[in-house]
Amino acid sequence: MNSTPKTRIGMLVFPMMTSLDILGPFEVLARAPDCQAELVWKNREPLKGDTGLTLIPDQAFATAPQYDMLVVPGGPGQTPLMEDEEVLQFLRQQAAGAKWVTSVCTGSLLLAAAGLLEGRSATSHWMSIDQLELFGVRALPDRVVVDGDRITGGGVTSGLDFAFTVLGILRGADAAKALQLMLEYDPAPPFQSGHPRVAAPELVEKVRASAAPMLERRREVSRRVARRMAAK
Amino acid sequence: MNSTPKTRIGMLVFPMMTSLDILGPFEVLARAPDCQAELVWKNREPLKGDTGLTLIPDQAFATAPQYDMLVVPGGPGQTPLMEDEEVLQFLRQQAAGAKWVTSVCTGSLLLAAAGLLEGRSATSHWMSIDQLELFGVRALPDRVVVDGDRITGGGVTSGLDFAFTVLGILRGADAAKALQLMLEYDPAPPFQSGHPRVAAPELVEKVRASAAPMLERRREVSRRVARRMAAK
Repeated sequence: MNSTPKTRIGMLVFPMMTSLDILGPFEVLARAPDCQAELVWKNREPLKGDTGLTLIPDQAFATAPQYDMLVVPGGPGQTPLMEDEEVLQFLRQQAAGAKWVTSVCTGSLLLAAAGLLEGRSATSHWMSIDQLELFGVRALPDRVVVDGDRITGGGVTSGLDFAFTVLGILRGADAAKALQLMLEYDPAPPFQSGHPRVAAPELVEKVRASAAPMLERRREVSRRVARRMAAK
Repeated sequence: MNSTPKTRIGMLVFPMMTSLDILGPFEVLARAPDCQAELVWKNREPLKGDTGLTLIPDQAFATAPQYDMLVVPGGPGQTPLMEDEEVLQFLRQQAAGAKWVTSVCTGSLLLAAAGLLEGRSATSHWMSIDQLELFGVRALPDRVVVDGDRITGGGVTSGLDFAFTVLGILRGADAAKALQLMLEYDPAPPFQSGHPRVAAPELVEKVRASAAPMLERRREVSRRVARRMAAK
């Protein structure tokens, strides 16, 4: 009668999210031994990410089980959710019973807006990481930051490094190494331009300028939410 | 009245595919300047990849436009398609008018089965790359292989390196570098185990053994299809 209980991993999805933030980790963690990963949102209606990819939630908030691990992605659609009480409430309720509360990309800002990263170290997409400080979070510009039961990844593609790090914590290094080999995760980027540390400074400014309106909207919301939290 | 025609990128999807083979490249190429990426299959019914992720094709074979670039993924569901005339016919028709014919993971075996890689150099997932030789393809164990208008990527996660390589070819290095920065593609794998070159030999054998039944089914089909092609 002895069976290993599966580790239940709830991965938030939402309209205008950056789909790869979750789909990279999903493809890793859904294959992990004794893990069950599912996509969760307010309801189970199909929704579209910011590149138009359709995602179908496996689970609705109202019927979701208590997850062992919560994973929150980012993308343009994360900004309005920082003021969406239904979402913040779901994250807080899950976090209260979860063993790990995690994020990829600007998902960390959503966790911060829910009050779930205060006093912790965390990372985020390089263009938005400064906003973590508004919420009393110590921002570390690392690819993956593990601060006890809070695990956060940097921008978009960091979700793969995040997922193998998480798998190492959940199931040990050998399990992570086996799956890394199965998924041939031996990256060889054709250009060295994936972070401001290595990209040309003029390119960094150009990319930042192209995202400026989106970043400004996000910063306004972050400031407003942080002010409200401080006033409580 | 001068408008740049978009580069149309058709990405094959199918039941029991490895979803990340396509979803990594999709997230890159759907954001690329003047590119339009879509998922294409026999029909537009939802289908499930090998981790249970639901994908919804944007386009059916019968109504698909002539694509400029064709991208073919792999995964367990690729094996039966090597003998599926409807699929092989679609690939051949598209390839005849496409500027680039490409694949990720064991998608290269599907291209080979359609007779689209004969005499060319190509790569594939490390566990199945030897099967390319059955089809008169020169197998190169590289992460991405560019042989003129044929571009192939290795296993699963190589799709990201493949996509940025393709973007560099389609739109130049600066466009690829800008998007690499936007998607923070600066990988830092937590373990060095993503290819037989770097993984522990006993782990390589263990992973290969765990996949043996699937590999044997694939090899049987590859042999049968190659024999039939040689007899023509």
